[in-house]
Amino acid sequence: MVTLETLNSADKSLFVSALSEIYEKSPWVAERAFARRPFATVAALCEAMAATVAAASRAEKIELVCNHPDLAGKAARAGALTAASTAEQGALGLDRLSDAEYARLEKLNGDYADRFGFPFVICVRRRTRDAILEAFERRCGNLPDEELETALFEIDHIARLRIADRVKGPGMAKTEGRLSTHVLDTLSGKPAAGVRIELYEIGASATSLLVDTITNADGRTDKPLLGGAPLRAGKYELRFHVGAYFAKSGQKLPEPAFLDVVPVRFAIAEPEGHYHVPLLVTPWSYSTYRGS
Amino acid sequence: MVTLETLNSADKSLFVSALSEIYEKSPWVAERAFARRPFATVAALCEAMAATVAAASRAEKIELVCNHPDLAGKAARAGALTAASTAEQGALGLDRLSDAEYARLEKLNGDYADRFGFPFVICVRRRTRDAILEAFERRCGNLPDEELETALFEIDHIARLRIADRVKGPGMAKTEGRLSTHVLDTLSGKPAAGVRIELYEIGASATSLLVDTITNADGRTDKPLLGGAPLRAGKYELRFHVGAYFAKSGQKLPEPAFLDVVPVRFAIAEPEGHYHVPLLVTPWSYSTYRGS
Amino acid sequence: MVTLETLNSADKSLFVSALSEIYEKSPWVAERAFARRPFATVAALCEAMAATVAAASRAEKIELVCNHPDLAGKAARAGALTAASTAEQGALGLDRLSDAEYARLEKLNGDYADRFGFPFVICVRRRTRDAILEAFERRCGNLPDEELETALFEIDHIARLRIADRVKGPGMAKTEGRLSTHVLDTLSGKPAAGVRIELYEIGASATSLLVDTITNADGRTDKPLLGGAPLRAGKYELRFHVGAYFAKSGQKLPEPAFLDVVPVRFAIAEPEGHYHVPLLVTPWSYSTYRGS
Amino acid sequence: MVTLETLNSADKSLFVSALSEIYEKSPWVAERAFARRPFATVAALCEAMAATVAAASRAEKIELVCNHPDLAGKAARAGALTAASTAEQGALGLDRLSDAEYARLEKLNGDYADRFGFPFVICVRRRTRDAILEAFERRCGNLPDEELETALFEIDHIARLRIADRVKGPGMAKTEGRLSTHVLDTLSGKPAAGVRIELYEIGASATSLLVDTITNADGRTDKPLLGGAPLRAGKYELRFHVGAYFAKSGQKLPEPAFLDVVPVRFAIAEPEGHYHVPLLVTPWSYSTYRGS
Repeated sequence: MVTLETLNSADKSLFVSALSEIYEKSPWVAERAFARRPFATVAALCEAMAATVAAASRAEKIELVCNHPDLAGKAARAGALTAASTAEQGALGLDRLSDAEYARLEKLNGDYADRFGFPFVICVRRRTRDAILEAFERRCGNLPDEELETALFEIDHIARLRIADRVKGPGMAKTEGRLSTHVLDTLSGKPAAGVRIELYEIGASATSLLVDTITNADGRTDKPLLGGAPLRAGKYELRFHVGAYFAKSGQKLPEPAFLDVVPVRFAIAEPEGHYHVPLLVTPWSYSTYRGS
Repeated sequence: MVTLETLNSADKSLFVSALSEIYEKSPWVAERAFARRPFATVAALCEAMAATVAAASRAEKIELVCNHPDLAGKAARAGALTAASTAEQGALGLDRLSDAEYARLEKLNGDYADRFGFPFVICVRRRTRDAILEAFERRCGNLPDEELETALFEIDHIARLRIADRVKGPGMAKTEGRLSTHVLDTLSGKPAAGVRIELYEIGASATSLLVDTITNADGRTDKPLLGGAPLRAGKYELRFHVGAYFAKSGQKLPEPAFLDVVPVRFAIAEPEGHYHVPLLVTPWSYSTYRGS
Repeated sequence: MVTLETLNSADKSLFVSALSEIYEKSPWVAERAFARRPFATVAALCEAMAATVAAASRAEKIELVCNHPDLAGKAARAGALTAASTAEQGALGLDRLSDAEYARLEKLNGDYADRFGFPFVICVRRRTRDAILEAFERRCGNLPDEELETALFEIDHIARLRIADRVKGPGMAKTEGRLSTHVLDTLSGKPAAGVRIELYEIGASATSLLVDTITNADGRTDKPLLGGAPLRAGKYELRFHVGAYFAKSGQKLPEPAFLDVVPVRFAIAEPEGHYHVPLLVTPWSYSTYRGS
Repeated sequence: MVTLETLNSADKSLFVSALSEIYEKSPWVAERAFARRPFATVAALCEAMAATVAAASRAEKIELVCNHPDLAGKAARAGALTAASTAEQGALGLDRLSDAEYARLEKLNGDYADRFGFPFVICVRRRTRDAILEAFERRCGNLPDEELETALFEIDHIARLRIADRVKGPGMAKTEGRLSTHVLDTLSGKPAAGVRIELYEIGASATSLLVDTITNADGRTDKPLLGGAPLRAGKYELRFHVGAYFAKSGQKLPEPAFLDVVPVRFAIAEPEGHYHVPLLVTPWSYSTYRGS
């Protein structure tokens, strides 16, 4: 980690060396952004680097895009990614694809490169695996200029997250989202304590358990279900085990009870947003909504 | 079909012959119930036959239970069931079990017979396949007298349904349940028309699509989701395709939308009950409940 | 009452005499509409008479409007209204105004006549007293042509209701609205029976009790809260006495209970619409909505 | 204000003088509680003084009750109350009663004294004026011993609040409640900002506006609707002006809109509780509940 203060007072070679990896294999972005110093906030540094890219020539922009590896491509398989790309792609399990999935991605990578002449770039830390594949297919239908803009937009997101990992200082750009919940027992007018909650990521081919927790005395979870990083845009399901909760309530209920596990399926579209998805529940009814 | 009027005026041999199959291989029930004529309603006939069984000796009761075939047992495989039992067991697919499932049932049939000395009897038309297997395992833990009462209670349910199939007349016993729904769009304050709804039976090992339909202009389905017969007690899931519905509403929504397919998972405990399970929904919230 | 069949086969003088009062003191509307016979439905007769007015000259239209009495004006006080106008204005209590209210109406009648040269006409059977006064003040701000159209639109509504009172036949125009409710106890998953419900009309200066009833076993009222006539557009409040209901439920509740009388305040804008305003309630929560 | 530390180290005369007014004209409570020092928390001091009263003789207890003035009685009118009693009774407006109300209270004071031989004591800071009058009438029906216990229970509440006003230190007894709200617009999935909210106290004879505020960007009020003191048990109504809010939403709505001012009527029973009473609302529906 380097401080913003250090960057603001560093000489050019130190500045560039500290930020050379923010834009993939493109130290020229840091070199040119140097002139825009000083930066009052980390967010201002992000904007300055993004503005530098926006002001570059079309050829430079295309070269910047081309510096990125294919998604789960040969470079990834051969271990030839930059450290940053390795960390980013690895977290999503793109390096552990089945042969069929690998073949599908190879095909997409090929079709995309044929059409646009540069590799598909996406900020993987802001999307689930399924959402990435869906975006990949959808973006293959873009017009070339539109797609170049989309790729650069994604690269700015990647840069913003890389800066957040490396530069410490006031006025950080928003790089964290949050998913929270709350269970309210409207039978007794009290928070529902001790309710098991599971959170799943819903993919086309698989459903992955992300969190398995229990509500506290306030009907909430001790920490947010997701947080401390961008949320991955994509599809999710919360499962509230209210049957076991009400079975202890002393309320007379049929066997089997009308409600047991309540699934709430929803999508996250804003990786830096706050999604509060509460449940108001009796043994015979429930409500849920995107709250705040 | 025979009318209640005919039964009330028939001579004994005709009466017994018409009702000989109501209680499995036990024409004596009809013979003794003959003395209780006339019956003002079909329900009164059901009660009279049930009362006849209740007044029989313990040996007769056990023999009545023993007249029933094993559930999906050798008799079913060999095609040696009574016509009524064939129809009842067949509808549930118990005759199309995998070898593993067949083996599990054989084991349960064996354990049960060892413990109680009579076969496991259950009114299969009032339960899902999973609920039957669950009841089978649970009832293996009953005390012998308790289990005999349970078996006779089920036999009375079987008889009531067989009577409803064969006897026509006033005052039918309640043998039908109903599952209905209603989708209300609380964004526009109107019934949600054109919403696709799927209904699934949720089993431990499989999820079966029972209904796939579309709401009409009143936000309802043209006919009840389930009806015209007892509901099968068990677990179900409704899936409301509200994402596609709201996509046409002109409302500005994120991509992906917060809500797409809304699953509502619930259990039915009363086969002759009315379950109304509506959905009140906006693109950002929904409520559901057991209504009426 | 006359039947549509009679009207279709009557000679002109009989036809005109039967319909001479539909448009206030304007038998010419019936005379000209006679040529449009036969009418397949009562609604077609309404449309034909309205089309006759629409095709008349501007002078004739203004004269038609002028044939109407002032609202609660000197004619009403002097008992000089037509029988139809007497019945229509009387039902709303416009003939029983306080002196201050009478003075306010006189002022509005005067201002309006000065501005437009014809009296204020409104279909009083489709609005509450407060909604009429509000419309009166609002319409004083209209442009003259716009206001003439508005007056003729109201006259067509008056005519439609007068026809519904006098002509019997197939295909009646829609002249009835409906207000209904339903109380669902989501504590027990059952309709709430025995809940007292009051319905009030909410006026600026007064609140009038319209209905005081009790829910039946299905959680509904035996007949609609309002129906059999157009609903009067305006403001209403339902009061659900849920405190007394839950006090009998055996549920342990604080003293005083969180919810006692639940007020639901809403407006009706469509006199011929169906307003279903249910309540889903526990001792600690409730929901309401415009349903169907 | 005196600190708990000071009280723990003070000599007896200082200790007693600091706490002599906690129990009305009864310095003996402080004198005897002195022996129970030291007190780890302010709550422990409260409990020690309450335990001292509980251990006193019946005659002493009755004398303690008798030391209290009549509610809005002659002493209050003559300005002869202790400073603490003046502040407590004054805040509720009991000193500004109409002659009819004064007469009603005089009658209650007289009937009560005749029945029990001591004045009616109630912790006025924990109830609305209506709730006090209601409790007065209800308690007139108690048995004498039961009523003595009730009076002492109220005196302990009074003492606890007087201690909280005078003694500073760790572990304060809970003497504050809170009423909060939140408006969520489930049409747009966002907090509803700029919604006017009124809070009224609902009395049998009058409705008093307590708060008139506007929701902030988070759909909440900048400070709790009520807080910083015990809530007054009693009846309340929130009025949410959602009509004006949705009129700005761009949503097409009828005239008049279905919902304009949404009243939510509820009772507070726990003066030291947290009542969160949110509103989830669209132009056509709303939900409310006691949340947390």
